[in-house]
Amino acid sequence: MAAIKPSVPKGTRDFSPAEMVKRNFIFDTIKGVFRKFGYQQIETPSMENLSTLTGKYGDEGDKLMFKILNNGDLINSKLYNGLGELFNVLVPKGLKPSIDEVKENEPWHKGKDTKVVWEVPDAHSLNEAFQRVSESESERELYKKSNQDLISAVSEKALRYDLTVPFARYVVQHQNEITFPFKRFQVQPVWRADRPQRGRYREFFQCDADVVGSDSLLNEAEFILIYDEALSALGLKDFTVKINNRKILSGIAEVIGKIDNIIDLTVAIDKLDKIGLDGVIKELLERGFTIEDIERLKPVILLEGTNSVKLQSLRAALAGSVIGQTGCDEIEEVLNYVDNFKLQNAAIELDITLARGLNYYTGAIFEVKTNEVAIGSIGGGGRYDDLTGMFGLKGLTGAGISFGADRIYDVMEELNLFPADANQSTQVLICCFDKDGELYGLPLLQQLRDNNINTELYPAGAKIKKQLDYANNKNIPYTVVIGSDEMQSGLLTFKDMASGLQEKLTVKEIVVKLTSL
Amino acid sequence: MAAIKPSVPKGTRDFSPAEMVKRNFIFDTIKGVFRKFGYQQIETPSMENLSTLTGKYGDEGDKLMFKILNNGDLINSKLYNGLGELFNVLVPKGLKPSIDEVKENEPWHKGKDTKVVWEVPDAHSLNEAFQRVSESESERELYKKSNQDLISAVSEKALRYDLTVPFARYVVQHQNEITFPFKRFQVQPVWRADRPQRGRYREFFQCDADVVGSDSLLNEAEFILIYDEALSALGLKDFTVKINNRKILSGIAEVIGKIDNIIDLTVAIDKLDKIGLDGVIKELLERGFTIEDIERLKPVILLEGTNSVKLQSLRAALAGSVIGQTGCDEIEEVLNYVDNFKLQNAAIELDITLARGLNYYTGAIFEVKTNEVAIGSIGGGGRYDDLTGMFGLKGLTGAGISFGADRIYDVMEELNLFPADANQSTQVLICCFDKDGELYGLPLLQQLRDNNINTELYPAGAKIKKQLDYANNKNIPYTVVIGSDEMQSGLLTFKDMASGLQEKLTVKEIVVKLTSL
Repeated sequence: MAAIKPSVPKGTRDFSPAEMVKRNFIFDTIKGVFRKFGYQQIETPSMENLSTLTGKYGDEGDKLMFKILNNGDLINSKLYNGLGELFNVLVPKGLKPSIDEVKENEPWHKGKDTKVVWEVPDAHSLNEAFQRVSESESERELYKKSNQDLISAVSEKALRYDLTVPFARYVVQHQNEITFPFKRFQVQPVWRADRPQRGRYREFFQCDADVVGSDSLLNEAEFILIYDEALSALGLKDFTVKINNRKILSGIAEVIGKIDNIIDLTVAIDKLDKIGLDGVIKELLERGFTIEDIERLKPVILLEGTNSVKLQSLRAALAGSVIGQTGCDEIEEVLNYVDNFKLQNAAIELDITLARGLNYYTGAIFEVKTNEVAIGSIGGGGRYDDLTGMFGLKGLTGAGISFGADRIYDVMEELNLFPADANQSTQVLICCFDKDGELYGLPLLQQLRDNNINTELYPAGAKIKKQLDYANNKNIPYTVVIGSDEMQSGLLTFKDMASGLQEKLTVKEIVVKLTSL
Repeated sequence: MAAIKPSVPKGTRDFSPAEMVKRNFIFDTIKGVFRKFGYQQIETPSMENLSTLTGKYGDEGDKLMFKILNNGDLINSKLYNGLGELFNVLVPKGLKPSIDEVKENEPWHKGKDTKVVWEVPDAHSLNEAFQRVSESESERELYKKSNQDLISAVSEKALRYDLTVPFARYVVQHQNEITFPFKRFQVQPVWRADRPQRGRYREFFQCDADVVGSDSLLNEAEFILIYDEALSALGLKDFTVKINNRKILSGIAEVIGKIDNIIDLTVAIDKLDKIGLDGVIKELLERGFTIEDIERLKPVILLEGTNSVKLQSLRAALAGSVIGQTGCDEIEEVLNYVDNFKLQNAAIELDITLARGLNYYTGAIFEVKTNEVAIGSIGGGGRYDDLTGMFGLKGLTGAGISFGADRIYDVMEELNLFPADANQSTQVLICCFDKDGELYGLPLLQQLRDNNINTELYPAGAKIKKQLDYANNKNIPYTVVIGSDEMQSGLLTFKDMASGLQEKLTVKEIVVKLTSL
């Protein structure tokens, strides 16, 4: 075996024990809050059929999906056939067989619907044909297309790209076992063949809660409560849940008679904090909006004051739009619900420039930002009607939120919010000089574990220095040293590794001391 | 979108909320015991480089690996090139270009080491050539081979096949950050393209604990303690940890002078319980062992009595073998360690017919069987020297065990050992007739959650019957109904769904009652 230093695939990560303790703290905290609000955990397979995933994320998504090769002989037979087709896709004029000829004479086409023969005019040898293809952009495209056909012939599965589409698939597949409204949460990795960057990985965990089958805005209100409780439990003190509503954006587009340009509109005003009002106006003009449009937009774009003041101005500005008013009603109802609860740390901000996921959200839109660290959003979500329509189950409305675990991790690191690991690692290391000490230590080892204290005994044979280094490197807070004096006196050396304080204690005293900590 | 009912890939599973509660119970219990014994959690990526995995599991393993397609343009360019090669692999005589010609004229071969041109003698058209190939076994083999080259050109990664090889890779890659002995546990899914069967899946969780860098047999002893504590905590009452040692098997082979036939030997005696002594003897004769060999083997095969009696007979039978004696010493030391602890439910049985993983275990071999349900082993492991040698880090000894979570799940189902879900699901559902009731219920909702009671309020608008059905289907043990009378009197209807008992209680009384449960 070559001794080249092994590594992990680009964009993937190992998680060390220290990192796992922190990640578990984040995930366990969020899961606990999800459960407190009645959400139930499910898990779906890492791989889904391509037919389930393809076309659900746009061309970009299809391209960034990690596809899995079919296995063993399947590959060969299919590729064989695939190449048969490919051969038919590319032939010089001289050799061109007719479709019938192909089906007649080539066993690997029997019963297959062979593709149209693609001709390379004036190519008199395959050499020349390949050459031509390698030089002509258009022909290379056709050639690539045929390669993609071949790929799809050897791959029928792909790794999960997000948790939402598998959830929709789950709901449709298990609709007869599910009681609606169905409140589920899911914490699993997803995979995207994105170009890795700082903070962007090819394998990362998503942390989603969604409800399907309930149109009550209490769900939206509870999402705000979930963000407040979970992020507060993680130690965040100052964060904002931004809320908007797709219907308000539609209303804005409607009142200026530009309902078809809603994307241009939202893309432009979305940049307000970055490029300022003048920038937005410039962009709106470029995108074909008129001075009059912009004059009517200004009061909306420049919305200020408390959420209720903003709502008032919005209602006025959207007087002419039924859908706009509905959007205002929905926002207002959500805020009224929340007023019945006490929030710990979350600020709520109505932000009509918020347009994330505009293509699928149909009602509320959420985004969560921390104000303590300069980093992107640490959460987001919204309501999407007809979640399961893509799988043929119509009219089920859904709403959901997601936590950005990796970013939350970075924020907590920067603010130093991780607690001393919650009893996840070893609390006591029993050290001994020799086999006698080892034997003497075994009953203590058992007693401590019987009291649910994570305990290790360092196997006899190593220098005490090495054993104490082991304790330090593993952040083990307490050590017990068993030497010949200790065994004679029955008084063991108990050491607090942080303070360095030592005392002589009996086994009984050590157990009492540690259990009472 | 077609309305065909969606499904999961063959051999994979969705896990419902009810199943997740049970699976979490199993995994959390085992993880807790691992931690109690000083093992630390790590996680590795789902995908590893093929260079890391290939050749580690034998040809069978390489075949059953789920390979991942390289992405986007990469595929095209490589396939393009691959096809270039393939084209060169298969040409009719008439068109055959020389290697130089190919490298000269075909851009996609520049700088590539193009394969030797494969000629199809007397084929005068590609049609004919393909036809020939499709009919000749040998030529088809060559053709398949070239397809496999093409596959390896489009795949550089595969899904994790087990947790041991990635762990070895982790240790070598991070050796400078690790304090040895390194005790790690890992609970993650693995993927195998096996033919799915009852109880065999293509995606399943492995649950491993391994220690590297310590040759102390205390580790082996603690593995027995871990099995005892974890399986007892899961409710198993009667199970056996079988223990053997590779060195004993070597000793047995040595004393009959058949050290090279150790595999044949162990394969045969491994079947003792199935085919009985006569069957084993028959098989041994078939495998080339003599009557004399068998006479000398009998006492060993028919070993009976307590573990120490068995050890005595073994020592006698293996008198001539140094390695055999060492194996006995090791078994004895492990058993002596364990004698210093009290086991809850595990029986320990020295079983020299146990030969699992013979190809890589070098010392102790473990297997765990429940005696309450007829099912295969629910755990196993052993010691393997030189775990990390495959990645160039020599001389690190390791030992590890694994829990068969899926089988343990089936056993617990059959024995009805799963507890009423440990506060993982909703405890109280607040039901109301209308918006007023909803509003009235919100403070109660918050108070219960503030007391860490998982609580839901069913959004107003549904019939009470539907709300109570929801509670029943979700196994919610308590409901609170808020009607107009309740709001007037301030006495809410509190119902125990199991007993059906109802009482009228104030909000305060409800909170007290539920928090004191």
